[in-house]
Amino acid sequence: MKRIDSVKNEHVKRWKKLHTKKGRETAGRFLVEGYHLVEEALKANMAVEYILMTEGAILPSSLSMQDQDMIIVSDQVMKELSETETPQGIAAVCVIPTEPNVDKVTGQYLLLDRIQDPGNLGTMIRTADAAGMTGVILGEGSVDVFNSKVIRATQGSIFHLPVIKGNLEKWIEVFKKSSIPVFGTALNEASSYSAIQPQSHFALIMGNEGEGVAQPLLEKTDQNIYIPIHGQAESLNVSVAAGILLYYLRG
Amino acid sequence: MKRIDSVKNEHVKRWKKLHTKKGRETAGRFLVEGYHLVEEALKANMAVEYILMTEGAILPSSLSMQDQDMIIVSDQVMKELSETETPQGIAAVCVIPTEPNVDKVTGQYLLLDRIQDPGNLGTMIRTADAAGMTGVILGEGSVDVFNSKVIRATQGSIFHLPVIKGNLEKWIEVFKKSSIPVFGTALNEASSYSAIQPQSHFALIMGNEGEGVAQPLLEKTDQNIYIPIHGQAESLNVSVAAGILLYYLRG
Repeated sequence: MKRIDSVKNEHVKRWKKLHTKKGRETAGRFLVEGYHLVEEALKANMAVEYILMTEGAILPSSLSMQDQDMIIVSDQVMKELSETETPQGIAAVCVIPTEPNVDKVTGQYLLLDRIQDPGNLGTMIRTADAAGMTGVILGEGSVDVFNSKVIRATQGSIFHLPVIKGNLEKWIEVFKKSSIPVFGTALNEASSYSAIQPQSHFALIMGNEGEGVAQPLLEKTDQNIYIPIHGQAESLNVSVAAGILLYYLRG
Repeated sequence: MKRIDSVKNEHVKRWKKLHTKKGRETAGRFLVEGYHLVEEALKANMAVEYILMTEGAILPSSLSMQDQDMIIVSDQVMKELSETETPQGIAAVCVIPTEPNVDKVTGQYLLLDRIQDPGNLGTMIRTADAAGMTGVILGEGSVDVFNSKVIRATQGSIFHLPVIKGNLEKWIEVFKKSSIPVFGTALNEASSYSAIQPQSHFALIMGNEGEGVAQPLLEKTDQNIYIPIHGQAESLNVSVAAGILLYYLRG
């Protein structure tokens, strides 16, 4: 088995660049950290390029066939590559999947417009997974889905359903062609969500934490909906709102 | 108007102790920071003991009558008292409300059992406010509700509805006496939430992020419910789950 002890090793320098969005896009790779996430990546048949582990790290059982990709690294190297305070001693370098070229679709989708908070993005991917969504479409201007905080917040759901980056206006056209209703979330010219019936096929758009869904998108939806506020709160957290709407709409 | 420039001032030393749970309990006071939260505290007729502001800070309009409590502080003092990276120049010292002694109740309640994450606790208080709950009961072993991260995450909802610390087993007795159904959340021996009808009076218990609701509490409820997982996620985030259930149960 290969072994890397020095933080000056060329591989380590290259992998460290995966901490930034630009680095990930240039390399077409992203890092995942920790036993649970590495196991999920392997189970999902993600293209895992390397497994990095410190001596004595516990190995996921799904690892058996892939030992050609395993590299033992020193604690220092792991610390250099880790973005958590207490690295678990195992990480993986994964290949960013290529975007599918889709013309017609079926199923239930969550569309996300310019989400800024990594915790919110990760939690919404996790919620979409739990609610059995077919996929998540991530519009331009959102925090990068391969950001380590996002991946951690998904708790592995990033490996359970397709999370596709794309232009939301184009995707709305795809849903229209596929006769799938598109629901925006908005406060004006919108109906209470409970006025809508649950749907076997739908696309729901959740928007930016401060600004909501962009107006040009709201103008292209079939219907815009809101969650009534019964108390004195000004709004709901976007992840909480996504959970309420996805579980309601899926029926 | 009074003025405090030195971080060694006795008041400043005393207020800084409000950063810890012990300090808050001893003093019976807590700090809130920022324009929005100070405004909410004033609007809610909270017992605001002092308003602290730096020169040039924007004042909430609800402030007019209370200038006897206002103190100008130096930027250094504000920085010393602030727990955010970029203090907004306004803060308030508030009196922790005394717990009501309740025998019989009506309405809709969220009960929280040993919530650890300040963001989750704050978000659930905000969600309970939005869903029009009558109150939130916070059991023993939870993160302190007057922790500054919790207060920020409530976005002001902490001032909109009663958040009562108490023994959850005793509270379940109060709900029973008041003929209000108590729902626990659990994975075993539980029904899907959609098998329950919305209720005009209810108490819902959400539990610890890792362990859920404690077994002794689950044994005292009228019924335990769960949210079905349709995909491969292991669970939902507790704040998201609370949102789905509160909006469903309130009808």
